[in-house]
Amino acid sequence: MSNFSIQKFIADRRDGNLNSQEDISQFCQEIAKGSIPDYQISAWLMAAYLKPLSLEETTDLTIAMAESGSQLNLTGLPKPWVDKHSTGGVGDKTSLVILPLLASMGLTMVKMSGRGLGITGGTVDKLQSVAGFRMDLSADELLAQAKKIGIAITGQSQSLAPADKVLYALRDTTETIASIPLIVSSILSKKFASGADIIVIDVKCGSGAFMKTLTQAKELKHWLEKIGEQAGRIVACHISDMDQPLGEAVGNAIEVQEAISVLKNQDGSASRARFKQLVLSLASATAVTARIAQSYEKGMELAIHHLESGLAELKAQEWFRAQGAADLAVAIEPLPSAGLKAKQSGWIQHIDAERIGQAVLELGGGRKAKDDTIDPQVGILLSKPIGHQIAKDEALLTVKARTLKQAQDVAHSLELAVLVSPTPIPVPALLIS
Amino acid sequence: MSNFSIQKFIADRRDGNLNSQEDISQFCQEIAKGSIPDYQISAWLMAAYLKPLSLEETTDLTIAMAESGSQLNLTGLPKPWVDKHSTGGVGDKTSLVILPLLASMGLTMVKMSGRGLGITGGTVDKLQSVAGFRMDLSADELLAQAKKIGIAITGQSQSLAPADKVLYALRDTTETIASIPLIVSSILSKKFASGADIIVIDVKCGSGAFMKTLTQAKELKHWLEKIGEQAGRIVACHISDMDQPLGEAVGNAIEVQEAISVLKNQDGSASRARFKQLVLSLASATAVTARIAQSYEKGMELAIHHLESGLAELKAQEWFRAQGAADLAVAIEPLPSAGLKAKQSGWIQHIDAERIGQAVLELGGGRKAKDDTIDPQVGILLSKPIGHQIAKDEALLTVKARTLKQAQDVAHSLELAVLVSPTPIPVPALLIS
Repeated sequence: MSNFSIQKFIADRRDGNLNSQEDISQFCQEIAKGSIPDYQISAWLMAAYLKPLSLEETTDLTIAMAESGSQLNLTGLPKPWVDKHSTGGVGDKTSLVILPLLASMGLTMVKMSGRGLGITGGTVDKLQSVAGFRMDLSADELLAQAKKIGIAITGQSQSLAPADKVLYALRDTTETIASIPLIVSSILSKKFASGADIIVIDVKCGSGAFMKTLTQAKELKHWLEKIGEQAGRIVACHISDMDQPLGEAVGNAIEVQEAISVLKNQDGSASRARFKQLVLSLASATAVTARIAQSYEKGMELAIHHLESGLAELKAQEWFRAQGAADLAVAIEPLPSAGLKAKQSGWIQHIDAERIGQAVLELGGGRKAKDDTIDPQVGILLSKPIGHQIAKDEALLTVKARTLKQAQDVAHSLELAVLVSPTPIPVPALLIS
Repeated sequence: MSNFSIQKFIADRRDGNLNSQEDISQFCQEIAKGSIPDYQISAWLMAAYLKPLSLEETTDLTIAMAESGSQLNLTGLPKPWVDKHSTGGVGDKTSLVILPLLASMGLTMVKMSGRGLGITGGTVDKLQSVAGFRMDLSADELLAQAKKIGIAITGQSQSLAPADKVLYALRDTTETIASIPLIVSSILSKKFASGADIIVIDVKCGSGAFMKTLTQAKELKHWLEKIGEQAGRIVACHISDMDQPLGEAVGNAIEVQEAISVLKNQDGSASRARFKQLVLSLASATAVTARIAQSYEKGMELAIHHLESGLAELKAQEWFRAQGAADLAVAIEPLPSAGLKAKQSGWIQHIDAERIGQAVLELGGGRKAKDDTIDPQVGILLSKPIGHQIAKDEALLTVKARTLKQAQDVAHSLELAVLVSPTPIPVPALLIS
C-alpha cells in the first residue's frame, strides 16, 4: 500500500532534505505499531538533532504523533476548553491554583498531566500527596466531570500520542532531547490529541528550567505558537522567570499546601506573594485569549475578584472532592528540619533554582529515574525572593527531611545557593514576555 | 573502575568535541560485551556520520575495534607477512592469482576473507565453488599452513574485531555506511587484528565499486595510509579502475576458472589480459613495499618471471591441495547461455560495471541479503575492455543462467550496458594512483 522506506527516511534527514508529510505520518504510524527497530528511530533522531526539522515538518510531525493513538473527543463540553501547560520549573505549582481560578471564571479546564522527572516536579506527583485524590480518571470520567463542574485532571493516558512516548524515551537516552522542533512536537502532540481549543503554555526560563536563556525561551515560544497556528489551534505562550524557585515551597505536599493557602487568601511570605502574582498574570492573559475579558487589565480585575472573593477556593473544593479527596486540604507531617540563616543583612541577590531543585531530588522528593518512588513530605521552604531585604540571622531557607542529619547536611550544602548583597538588588521581572 | 558514560560519549560526538582514546576503547569493549543498547550505538553512528571522526580518533577507533576480540599471533611465521585486501569490485578475482604469485616470490600470504554482499563478490564465495576447498581453517591450521607453504586463507573468524561486526551491521540499516572514518576503521580493524606486517589495499574506483569518483578513492587511500602510519603498520594503497568489470568473467566458478587460466599462462581475451596486467602491477608494487625488489621495474621482472615460469601455478596447486581441493581446477557446468552482439563495428566505449554486477546478482550469483545462498555457476563473460576494437556481430558478452529464457532476458536487459563508438576510444588507465 505504502512506499514508505525507513532507510530513505533516515537518509533524507541525514542529507538535510525534507521529510514529506506522507512519510512523517507513516513513520509515526509504524512507530506506534512497534514495527520500526529502536536503532533506526534513534539514527533518525540524531540526524534530526543535527539537521533540524523545518516549521512545516515540525507541524507534520506534531499532527502525526497526535494521530498515532487515541484522541479525546470533546464534543458536548462547554466552550472554550482550555489546557494549561508548563515547561517545568522548580517549585512550579501554578496549575493547582490557576485551574480552579479559571474554572470559577467560566472556562472549562481539562488537563492530562505527566509525572515529573529530574529537578522539575510533575502536577501528578504533587496531587498524589493529597489522600484519596484520584489521578487515574478514565477518559469518560474526565469528560463527565469537566462537563459537570468545569474542571478535571488525570494522569496521561498510555494510549495518547504513543509515537511521542517511543520517541521521547529514546531521546532521553540518546542525547537528542535539546532540539526545539523535537521538544515542540512532543509537547504539542499530546495537547493536540487531548483536543483543547486553547493551549496556554508557561515557558519557564532560567537556571531552574530546561530553557536556560531568554533567547532559547523566545525561540521555543515562537515555535510553539507557529506550530499551533499552522495546525489551526490557539497556542498562547508566556515566558516566566525561573532563575529562582517559584513560591515558598519546593516539594510535593508542601507545594499543594502553598497552593491551597493562595486559594484561601492566606497571606504568607514574600515568596508566596510572588507566586500569587504569576498565577494572576497568567490567568489575566488567558482570560483575554479565551475572550472572557477585553483587556489584560479587565482580566486582572476578574481574576483578583474570583480569587479574593473565595469563588476559586469553592471551585477547588468542588474539584478536590469530585476527584476523591475529603476536602481542600493536604496532610503535612512534622519532619525534622534545619534552617539556613543570613550571615549578614542585605538584599537577596541570588537563589540557585537548579541547586534547590537538585537538593529536593536528593532528599527523595523527586524522581531521578522513571520508576523511582517519591517521598511527598520532604522539601525546602523559602521566605524571600530576589531583591527583597533580609536581616542578619533571618532564615533564608528551611530543609524538611526524614532525619535531622540529612536536613542539616542539605542545608549546609546550600550555603552558596543563596547569596545576600550588602547593596540593594532590583526585583527581577516575573512575567518576561 | 571506569568513568565511561555512553550518554556523554554520544553528546561529545554530537557537539563535535573529540571522543577520548580511553572512551573510544571503552566504547568498543562494551559493544563487544553487548552491554550498550543498539539505539545508543546508532545515535553515535549518525552523529559520527554528520560530525566525522578526526584522523586521531579514527586511529583510536581502529585499534580499539581490533582489540575488542581475539587477535592472531603471528610469532614464528616467516616474514614479511603480507595481507592483500580489495575494497571490492565487479569481477575482482585478483587475490586468487596474486596470493600464490607473491607466495612463490617468497612472501608469506595469510588472508582472512569476508563473504560478498551486493554487486561485489567475496573471495570466500569464489573459492567455495571449488569442490573440497575448505574456508573454515582454524587459526592454528591457518598459521601451520602458512608456515609450511607460505600461503593460507580462511573465512573471517566471528571472534575477530567483534565491535566492528556490531557497528557494521548497524551502519548497514541506519544509513551511516558512507563515512570515510567509519569505512577505514572497519577495514583496518580486521587487518590489524589478523596481525599482518604489510597491508596492501586495492582501492577500487568507478561505477562498479563503492567509491564512485577518483576524489573519493583518493581520500580513502589517504586515510587508510595515514591510519596505518599512526598505528605503526605499513598500509600500501593502490587505486585501480572499476568503471568497467575486471577481467572476462563475472560470477564465482567462472572467475576461479579465469584466475587459474592466468596462473597457467593460458592466453585468453583482451579482458583477461587486462586482469593479468593488474595482478602484475599490484604484485610489482607489493614486492617493492616488502623490500624483495628495489624498484617497480625490478618487481615487474620478478613477478613476470614467477608467473610465466609456472612457479606461481605450482604454489597455487600446493595451496589448493593443502586446503582440501583435489587439484588446481574448478568444475564448470554447461549452463544455457545467451549472447549480446555488437550491432555495429567500432570501439568499446562503455561497459557499465554496476549493471553487469547487478545482473549477476539477479542471476543468483551474488547475495542481496546476508543469508542468501549463491549459485556458483551462473555469471557473465566479457571479451573486450574499453578502447578495444570490435567487429559487427562479434559477441560483446555471454550470459550463463539456469534457464535459456533467463539468459536471454538478462542479455537483452544489458543492451544499453555496453556501448560501441564508431570512432576510436582511448584505453583508460588501469592502475590510477
